[in-house]
Amino acid sequence: MNCEQNPIYTPTNIMDTYPHLRQTLELVADKWVVAVLYILSHGTRRYGELQREIGDISQRMLTRTLRDLERNGLVERKVYPVVPPMVEYSLTPLGKTINGVLKSLCDWSKQNFDAVETARTEYDRAQRAES
Amino acid sequence: MNCEQNPIYTPTNIMDTYPHLRQTLELVADKWVVAVLYILSHGTRRYGELQREIGDISQRMLTRTLRDLERNGLVERKVYPVVPPMVEYSLTPLGKTINGVLKSLCDWSKQNFDAVETARTEYDRAQRAES
Repeated sequence: MNCEQNPIYTPTNIMDTYPHLRQTLELVADKWVVAVLYILSHGTRRYGELQREIGDISQRMLTRTLRDLERNGLVERKVYPVVPPMVEYSLTPLGKTINGVLKSLCDWSKQNFDAVETARTEYDRAQRAES
Repeated sequence: MNCEQNPIYTPTNIMDTYPHLRQTLELVADKWVVAVLYILSHGTRRYGELQREIGDISQRMLTRTLRDLERNGLVERKVYPVVPPMVEYSLTPLGKTINGVLKSLCDWSKQNFDAVETARTEYDRAQRAES
């Protein structure tokens, strides 16, 4: 795997491409971030809807996740001046560009998760046999 | 975005696909996990090489990350009976299947990270103007 044009690996490639990938990892390689992006890729959501659909996220963590996503330009927050105030979240055009990544993650998950579960079971069995 | 065959969104879709994606997120949506998979996608590495190439990972976290990846069947650990012992890590065939996901993340990063940085700068400026 290499996102360089030149597919031939040279020792400097990783360090060349890594700083960039690294910043992206800080940004999106977080399960709450991906969960929010995934749900919003299906359409606009209110805060409470997001919380309900994710299920086990704390209010503090959801608020922080949404603020980071807004700061990074991936999510738009819209406040409607009604009583009680209504706040809606949706993907920005930039946020929508990440759908391809989510789709490949989602596809991978469907195709390979059974194999992961099998590997886990075997690993745990081997550990038990050793101890 | 939807990894279902049917691209039409129905209210039940998210809850249908979500449990599966959720398990995958627990597995791979972690910056250290992605960093290790990314480096190993370029070839076999020894423990010390991984630590050096990642840079700011603690020994405790690298050990934990590698053990989880091994347990999940994505990384293979090979111990050579030499003195001092030599341990090598590489992707399993299952681990290699995740390269497509890493590639799309890497491509996204290259194409969009500048826009993210711009969004951040604007957000921080707006916050300062408000306070």
